[in-house]
Amino acid sequence: TATPAAAFFLLLTTATLLSISIASYADSLPYIWPLPAFFTSGNATLSVDPDLSLSYSGNSAIVYDAFQRYKSLIFKHATRAPGPSRLLRGPSFDVSVLQIVVNSTNEELQFGVDESYTLRIDKRDSGSIVGAATIEAKTVYGALRALETFSQLCTFDYGLKTVQIYKASWYIQDEPRFAYRGLLLDTGRHYLPVDVIKQIIDSMSYAKLNVLHWHIVDEQSFPLETPTYPYLWKGAFSKWERYTVEDAYDIVNFAKKRGVHVMPEIDVPGHAESWGVGYPDLWPSSSCKEPLDVSKNVTFDVISGILSDLKRIFPFELVHLGGDEVNTDCWESTPHVKQWLKDHNMTPKDAYQYFVLRAQEMAISNNRIPVNWYVSSLK
Amino acid sequence: TATPAAAFFLLLTTATLLSISIASYADSLPYIWPLPAFFTSGNATLSVDPDLSLSYSGNSAIVYDAFQRYKSLIFKHATRAPGPSRLLRGPSFDVSVLQIVVNSTNEELQFGVDESYTLRIDKRDSGSIVGAATIEAKTVYGALRALETFSQLCTFDYGLKTVQIYKASWYIQDEPRFAYRGLLLDTGRHYLPVDVIKQIIDSMSYAKLNVLHWHIVDEQSFPLETPTYPYLWKGAFSKWERYTVEDAYDIVNFAKKRGVHVMPEIDVPGHAESWGVGYPDLWPSSSCKEPLDVSKNVTFDVISGILSDLKRIFPFELVHLGGDEVNTDCWESTPHVKQWLKDHNMTPKDAYQYFVLRAQEMAISNNRIPVNWYVSSLK
Repeated sequence: TATPAAAFFLLLTTATLLSISIASYADSLPYIWPLPAFFTSGNATLSVDPDLSLSYSGNSAIVYDAFQRYKSLIFKHATRAPGPSRLLRGPSFDVSVLQIVVNSTNEELQFGVDESYTLRIDKRDSGSIVGAATIEAKTVYGALRALETFSQLCTFDYGLKTVQIYKASWYIQDEPRFAYRGLLLDTGRHYLPVDVIKQIIDSMSYAKLNVLHWHIVDEQSFPLETPTYPYLWKGAFSKWERYTVEDAYDIVNFAKKRGVHVMPEIDVPGHAESWGVGYPDLWPSSSCKEPLDVSKNVTFDVISGILSDLKRIFPFELVHLGGDEVNTDCWESTPHVKQWLKDHNMTPKDAYQYFVLRAQEMAISNNRIPVNWYVSSLK
Repeated sequence: TATPAAAFFLLLTTATLLSISIASYADSLPYIWPLPAFFTSGNATLSVDPDLSLSYSGNSAIVYDAFQRYKSLIFKHATRAPGPSRLLRGPSFDVSVLQIVVNSTNEELQFGVDESYTLRIDKRDSGSIVGAATIEAKTVYGALRALETFSQLCTFDYGLKTVQIYKASWYIQDEPRFAYRGLLLDTGRHYLPVDVIKQIIDSMSYAKLNVLHWHIVDEQSFPLETPTYPYLWKGAFSKWERYTVEDAYDIVNFAKKRGVHVMPEIDVPGHAESWGVGYPDLWPSSSCKEPLDVSKNVTFDVISGILSDLKRIFPFELVHLGGDEVNTDCWESTPHVKQWLKDHNMTPKDAYQYFVLRAQEMAISNNRIPVNWYVSSLK
């Protein structure tokens, strides 16, 4: 990618301004971010039961786990324990049940998955003694976004020591404005432990971001285990700064539970010097190590092997192939590559195009949609 | 405290060099930090069972919880699942049981609590089919330190995908060189959420630090709830940047489970401007707000009230009363305080001494040992 320190932050919000005055809204709690596509609110304040229960008839672990996670977030401060006396007093909270209805049992997380939802939080119905908030969504991923919104509406009141929802009743209809809402992590220049990556994914879900663009590998290091070419991760910064295949699975599954796609990137041919630590044949020569040697079959065998390994780990249909910042001096200064260019009647620019297109074809033959940096677009 | 950005780091290791060559040790794994008081190691490599079980006959939740925490840390990478086939193959790991023996059932965490332990990790005994590591400690807090050392000896091997202990057999006898191994957190100048404080306490336990010196309050903000004087936390940065009494209990209990004392500090009389937001009488005048008004009884009533609230929350026998950087100009420029000095035949320096000693007496009458900054030592 373009700059060594890059943590490219592609942030696309669902904000739609509607007819609400931002000036007056900014002064009044609660904050919802990003702003839902449509919402109405009122002037009631509702208390939320610390024993908030889930009413959900489906069997998705994604929903059950998310409810527990958000409950921990909402009640991170100790609240007045209801205690046994509560049973004598009867229900004393306005919202004691969160009802979740998901219309589809399909949990596949693919690009463009439906993330829409409706969230209603009403005052206690005079006909009912149980206060309820209701989430309706087409998929579990919509339900995750609704839980995030619900949690943002829940505010701890330090004086009363209860969690409150201000400006109820709420009626929210929301769907993301953009299908791709991404964050790039570069672990090729700076190793991040698995736990840190998980924290970042957690924080993405709080902002309703949905694509972790994992720039795994770069010139400086190759931290990922690739069983097809097991010496590649010899190019890691150290033997400790690595990801096993199991680590990568773990990250993908953790992200899926938060509605976050993981798009892997291997940036070829210009950002791949580290590959040659394990397989020096990938370097044009031991003194000129980048871009990858376009003249050798092994180069494309290794890319193909990596792509098939990535396919097993990452179900997301997009795979990023980089393609930026290719300085072809190495190809021209290395005799056998220069000869290959001549034999194939190619300029270095032709060879670059050949390389990028051949890598794209490999991705497509792996049933993946290839993505490249804009600078690598070919005329 | 002396500097606004201060995060004063008092780090006292148990390192004893013994006769071991540091040069040769530095090149060879594993690292133990701080270095135990005494240890011997060998040349064997032992594998650790991902299903490592605990053999412990006591009933301390501190030990059970710590074992689970450290097991998660040791096996943070997925290891080869033993699978059903393992039963057919018989035990395949060298260390499959961690035995913990604690001699005392007393879990009180006080200054000078015994943190010594012995840790043995042997090769499988030819007479036994179950590999074991053994921890012996006088208190549960020694067992915590031993678990930390054990976890530091456990290294994930990325090639074999198992956790290994290098340089076994290990025999370690350890006790801290200093009873007070502290870290200061200043939440009076910079609010830290409860979860962040917990992360810091976790990291302290990894370095075997044992005192969180919580500089809760300062000029800039008063984030702690004090039921005796409930308006004090009006001096918080915001209504969100506060700690309830329950939050503070939560922190103390979290720290206790990691063998970490929490020593609260209220820094009087020079670092207490924020107190007057809720109780303006504590300021000498509305234009001169520091140090606290030495001439009024309410000043000492409030200190006494805070100290009795702190006593209920913090069982640690030390309480810090600050006392540094007192500029007495306010006392001399405010007519009623100046008159009081004159009536009592005191110089400002006398009044400062009177203030510090009176606060110390209040701590002592609350069965607490008062601690002050060195600059406040009185001749």
